[in-house]
Amino acid sequence: MTLNQYIRDVQDFPKEGVMFKDITPLLNNPKAVRECMALLLNNLRDRKIDKVVGVESRGFFFATLLAYELNAGFVPVRKPKKLPFATVSASYELEYGTDTLEVHTDAIKPGDRILIHDDVLATGGTAAAVCELVEKLGGEIVQCNFLMELSFLNGREKLGNREVYAPLVY
Amino acid sequence: MTLNQYIRDVQDFPKEGVMFKDITPLLNNPKAVRECMALLLNNLRDRKIDKVVGVESRGFFFATLLAYELNAGFVPVRKPKKLPFATVSASYELEYGTDTLEVHTDAIKPGDRILIHDDVLATGGTAAAVCELVEKLGGEIVQCNFLMELSFLNGREKLGNREVYAPLVY
Repeated sequence: MTLNQYIRDVQDFPKEGVMFKDITPLLNNPKAVRECMALLLNNLRDRKIDKVVGVESRGFFFATLLAYELNAGFVPVRKPKKLPFATVSASYELEYGTDTLEVHTDAIKPGDRILIHDDVLATGGTAAAVCELVEKLGGEIVQCNFLMELSFLNGREKLGNREVYAPLVY
Repeated sequence: MTLNQYIRDVQDFPKEGVMFKDITPLLNNPKAVRECMALLLNNLRDRKIDKVVGVESRGFFFATLLAYELNAGFVPVRKPKKLPFATVSASYELEYGTDTLEVHTDAIKPGDRILIHDDVLATGGTAAAVCELVEKLGGEIVQCNFLMELSFLNGREKLGNREVYAPLVY
């Protein structure tokens, strides 16, 4: 199975000049989802993971499945004012302005071994902010895991020496 | 296991006078998630389900897991301008104003047997709009499935004769 055939390129979304990778055709196909899961779990099955952190919203899809398969807790990282309990936050720069992400303070305990998942590694700004949130709460990042990496945007540079894994690279 | 202990009541969220049911402690506990899954799947295992429709954003968590367990496709229903491809939309009334949900036109085919999932059935406005979206595309709704039902809000009334199931009722 070529997973690429289930990823739809949408030109100029969410804004002009951006080629968006739409994973909804892939999510619509249970065989493709299972194949992605096998790839995403490739080097994780024998490692202890306490929590899987998923990034709002598209990161939630595979992050919940990864937590389920790894028998780990699932932790949502969300946009401001979406989480109802006490949170810590981290901000990151966009092309114009900044954006902020939050996580519940009780979601991660010091020493928890954390898998971070998002659908796409692009410039790395979001992922670096999520790493900051996890480390603020004392979590140890095992891997930053993505379905896709847009390698021409050099997102890995923002993630330092952390382990980065993405089965689909563009 | 009493699942209730993993659901946190947060007073005055997202606004004054609302008691919010926070499922993040439940998601953080893999045993509680498995117990919820067993309950949610209770009367679905022997029925043909082609697609599971999950409602942004908290509906995504269990909807992706239900699709995975039922070997069905997953279809996200999202807020306006979040889905990149051609969509149909449905609007529903809020206390003040209206809100709109969208689904990709190619996500559901006529005759597809559909499980709708959201975390909470409250007034039923959101769920009725999701039913409308599914039926616009020719899908047959097998069940409207929720983790929790706030029965004092009478949401079932908005869902007509459709099958409604929620293991946790308040």
